[in-house]
Amino acid sequence: MSEPTDTPPPAPDKKKWQRPVYPRKADVLAHTPDPNVRVMLRHMAERGMETVFDRFDTVTHCGHGLKGVCCQICNMGPCQITPRSPRGICGADEHVIVARNILRWIAAGVAAHGARGREVMLALKAAAAGRVDLPIRGEAKVRAVARAFRLDPEQGTTELAGQIADILLEDLSRTHPAAHRTLEAMAPPERIALWRSLDILPISAYHEVFEAYHRTGIGTDGDWRNLMQQLLRCGLAFAWSSVLGSAIAQDCLYGPPQRTRIDAGFGALDPDCVNIALHGHSPILPSAIVHAGESPELAALARSKGAQGIRFYGICCSGLSSLYRYGGVSPLTNAIGAELVLGTGALDAWVADVQDVYPSIMEVAKCFHTQVITTSDSGRLPGALHIGFDHANSNLGEVHHLAETIVRVGIDNFPLRRKANVFIPRTSIEAEVGFSIENILPEFGGADGLLRHLRAGTIRGIVNLVGCNNPKVVYEKAITDVADVLLAHDVIILTNGCASFPLLNLGYCRRAAAAKTGPALRALLEELDLPPVWHMGECLDNARASGLFRALADACGQPLKAMPFAFSSPEWSNEKGVGAALGFRLLGLDSYHCIPAPIAGSEAVQSFFEHDTTALLGGRMVVDTDPVALGATIVADLEARRRAIATQATAG
Amino acid sequence: MSEPTDTPPPAPDKKKWQRPVYPRKADVLAHTPDPNVRVMLRHMAERGMETVFDRFDTVTHCGHGLKGVCCQICNMGPCQITPRSPRGICGADEHVIVARNILRWIAAGVAAHGARGREVMLALKAAAAGRVDLPIRGEAKVRAVARAFRLDPEQGTTELAGQIADILLEDLSRTHPAAHRTLEAMAPPERIALWRSLDILPISAYHEVFEAYHRTGIGTDGDWRNLMQQLLRCGLAFAWSSVLGSAIAQDCLYGPPQRTRIDAGFGALDPDCVNIALHGHSPILPSAIVHAGESPELAALARSKGAQGIRFYGICCSGLSSLYRYGGVSPLTNAIGAELVLGTGALDAWVADVQDVYPSIMEVAKCFHTQVITTSDSGRLPGALHIGFDHANSNLGEVHHLAETIVRVGIDNFPLRRKANVFIPRTSIEAEVGFSIENILPEFGGADGLLRHLRAGTIRGIVNLVGCNNPKVVYEKAITDVADVLLAHDVIILTNGCASFPLLNLGYCRRAAAAKTGPALRALLEELDLPPVWHMGECLDNARASGLFRALADACGQPLKAMPFAFSSPEWSNEKGVGAALGFRLLGLDSYHCIPAPIAGSEAVQSFFEHDTTALLGGRMVVDTDPVALGATIVADLEARRRAIATQATAG
Repeated sequence: MSEPTDTPPPAPDKKKWQRPVYPRKADVLAHTPDPNVRVMLRHMAERGMETVFDRFDTVTHCGHGLKGVCCQICNMGPCQITPRSPRGICGADEHVIVARNILRWIAAGVAAHGARGREVMLALKAAAAGRVDLPIRGEAKVRAVARAFRLDPEQGTTELAGQIADILLEDLSRTHPAAHRTLEAMAPPERIALWRSLDILPISAYHEVFEAYHRTGIGTDGDWRNLMQQLLRCGLAFAWSSVLGSAIAQDCLYGPPQRTRIDAGFGALDPDCVNIALHGHSPILPSAIVHAGESPELAALARSKGAQGIRFYGICCSGLSSLYRYGGVSPLTNAIGAELVLGTGALDAWVADVQDVYPSIMEVAKCFHTQVITTSDSGRLPGALHIGFDHANSNLGEVHHLAETIVRVGIDNFPLRRKANVFIPRTSIEAEVGFSIENILPEFGGADGLLRHLRAGTIRGIVNLVGCNNPKVVYEKAITDVADVLLAHDVIILTNGCASFPLLNLGYCRRAAAAKTGPALRALLEELDLPPVWHMGECLDNARASGLFRALADACGQPLKAMPFAFSSPEWSNEKGVGAALGFRLLGLDSYHCIPAPIAGSEAVQSFFEHDTTALLGGRMVVDTDPVALGATIVADLEARRRAIATQATAG
Repeated sequence: MSEPTDTPPPAPDKKKWQRPVYPRKADVLAHTPDPNVRVMLRHMAERGMETVFDRFDTVTHCGHGLKGVCCQICNMGPCQITPRSPRGICGADEHVIVARNILRWIAAGVAAHGARGREVMLALKAAAAGRVDLPIRGEAKVRAVARAFRLDPEQGTTELAGQIADILLEDLSRTHPAAHRTLEAMAPPERIALWRSLDILPISAYHEVFEAYHRTGIGTDGDWRNLMQQLLRCGLAFAWSSVLGSAIAQDCLYGPPQRTRIDAGFGALDPDCVNIALHGHSPILPSAIVHAGESPELAALARSKGAQGIRFYGICCSGLSSLYRYGGVSPLTNAIGAELVLGTGALDAWVADVQDVYPSIMEVAKCFHTQVITTSDSGRLPGALHIGFDHANSNLGEVHHLAETIVRVGIDNFPLRRKANVFIPRTSIEAEVGFSIENILPEFGGADGLLRHLRAGTIRGIVNLVGCNNPKVVYEKAITDVADVLLAHDVIILTNGCASFPLLNLGYCRRAAAAKTGPALRALLEELDLPPVWHMGECLDNARASGLFRALADACGQPLKAMPFAFSSPEWSNEKGVGAALGFRLLGLDSYHCIPAPIAGSEAVQSFFEHDTTALLGGRMVVDTDPVALGATIVADLEARRRAIATQATAG
């Protein structure tokens, strides 16, 4: 039995909310930072090919949706909260409606990351059971995770890998209330105690998603605070199953990242090779495809068609993770840039699986010979060839055959490429990728070494600068603007996923970028031969960033909420993006964005995100549509945290 | 590898879609069939108390939402398909957007029914393990289900019940691809073969929900047909886990329905008793509360406060299921009518759990002494007292203590009731409830006997007339209009849940209602002493209707798609309602509605629902905003099916 919950605060002052002004395509052409993007946008406009930015200009963003007060969860509506109708037909007020909508977003994000992670967990289990011909390459990771799970170390790697897969799958799908084993084994004890006291420990990812959709159905949860309780549970399920569980499975199966220097940018496209793009998130087929591309037989076949070889390009995340593990993949662009790469006319096959594969790619591909191939039962595209896994993954064992078939489609398609249609911007640039806690800390002589620079102020903080893109701000400019401010103030940047492409393509990930930092940090980076932006991979590799943060906090003897670290996804747009930021706030870090979440319609929910969680968790959401101002706020907040740990260090 | 999927059909003719005209509150006052409803509406209007119908009049239904072409699944939008913007920012067309939205609805419905079913499955397991003091009352059901699951019959009921709970929970939450055991054990083999050939067999309810939200995230499934594939999987997960799995758990734990005659209607409220309403869906606490109410100690306490006793009233579903098992509960009204019951001022406690508990009940309760008590972690209401289970159901063992505490709250609150505030309409009416396959077939001498009347035409068909209510049509009138047409054409009606209240309250569930049918059926019903509407319970009891349909089809030697049966939810509004109708279409029956689903924005998806599934499954969705016309269509379609089986019978 408990006391009645508080009544929500008074209705928000409607005057405060103003419909935002968004950049037009002309603004993007004028201000997006990557010259290759501008070149491709102009080229495609000349050829009459539509892009995201054209469609963005035609859309009228509904103010009710932007504020989160449009309710479409039952067939009595839709209802929108307005001065004339301050409650929905069922009586739900703006707080309940906004809270339900944002909870449904985060739950969908848990499902997205979790579903693709599950495929790797199933593959790890199948590999351990010998049902699929995939070597378990991450032996050290398997051993380390097995220790964390207290598995019997006398067992072989294969046995341990199978048991790890079982635990991860159980944490993903458990329905009986019980401890989430990954979270309990790997989260900081200070946090576990806090989360337990808040009653937000998740049962499993499947369960919390199921419960989130149950609770947000009509006439179930009518208390925005209780809805936020489930939001926090989903945030933990997101971080510890969908992200960390998936990342563990990937590292166990495919091994850890390797630091690699590569050519980035549109100019990396090779006009003389069979060019195959890997677009999406699931690593299983892309890994097999990259391996298939190494086959002498297929290389000979490519040469027989007049190509000099076979090359792979990364769009969005799966390319990045293949790259840092195997090399031989050039990262080109993020989800929004995919149309621009297709617009080069230089791609022979385009392999797409799940998440951030906009249906519009078919329209651009149709203008060329490019064959789009979908590979997941979860993501089909009308007009694409489908070569992939079925709903039950029953043909997982055919992975190498499928991969080879796909590469052959690309090779067979190469002769259809018309040179006159090909337009490749010239510029490419060196970048370094593949950073991880395992390979960065030794550069500093361990966590203590890096921590000394943080305390001394050579490094004034570390920010995980990630997230998707969003045409609500000038494409890629919010990311580079924030990065410029951070580097100018000696803040080290970790990056991954979509946000990392402008940093790769504009030279932030090469050692020369140390020049963007102040003299002391520049000297340190030059001494250690490091770039100031440490590229950690794809979006699941947020787990590497939080791992590094944790190691430094432990070395400091402080909780994460006291450390000068932060999360920023300036241009976020995905439902997954809500969970990514919340995952870091749950750790006690602030998150920084240039685009608001659709919560402005409820002062209560907005205050929960922007203020209340500071007291609750140690982390809050900060939104500023001006990226330079946002960067300055991050720097100031890091400085305050740095002073706190410096004082504590002195006091201690 | 498969061929490229078809391109969608041409864009729908926008002119065909017209913004619908909805009834105003004045229309409801003039035309809603239950005089008690009219009386209460007038009374509340006089006292300045707001109801659903007042709020409905203030809402402007957005046409984009009504057509399903408003996309709010990422933060680049919201996007609405209009002539100016024929695709969303990501390139999704109207087919993908409509398909994603309706898939998300059904997935939320799977979660809603499944989550409350899970609570009973956990309780059954806890009861079997002796962790909660609940007798396993459904021994015959346990034995029958154990036979279907091929469990070792030598075991005791308790052991079998525990194993059944495990199977149901596994079917609910499995992540490894494997057979859904409940479906495989209990669905017609003809259907299983069909569903397998369509590749729509679900892995589990949790999994298909998770996958549905994954697939509908931005840039994942861009093929409306593939989205419909997942919709069908969710439909099966809904029917065989969320509904049947939950119903099995309830029947095993609480025993089967008993036919009972009761007083229905607002006039059943007793002005001299402690009055406690049971509102919602989960049976665990309501069952314990009804048992607690039988305690002589509490009855004495009630008398000591000046009451003549303690009485329970059912709002929506959980009251219905308590009623048919224990008696002593008067069903009053559905979700929309809840405000009207509160408006009587005669309720001392209002116990609310999950689903169809509109937040607006708090506003009406505040006008009186009525104490609202929430009992589920999934459904809180600001201002309510919370006495219930926690997120992990860790206090399930305290169920009897919680129930007694709740009854005491009602008793303690009785003296605060002010007679001057009480307004109870006078009319109540006899009704019979508690029909089931187990007790109705013996009345006819078994399935063959009932089938003979179907073949002979004494009974021209059987319709499961169910679903929620929706102010888009005159409250409860669509249901009674359809019922009148069906009965006049000698069609037997099965009913449950929200739709059943006007049938209970207006005399359709008493034997005298046989007068509404033709002479032959009337004679038969009088001979058998049966009403023409067989009330089967709460919304999960759709499983009883499909069980009866199945038994008759088996007796006929015909698949369900050949039988003169149908599903109708004229006034549906819940997300669950999409799954309920689809579950019957998946069996091969047509579903009939007066309110369209929000799919008119895609000709392809609308055609899939209204036409394509006939060839695929044998069942389609029929919508007619005129309930009398809808009833006539049902009758004509049943007649066609009846002729087919009559011909086959002759040919055979």
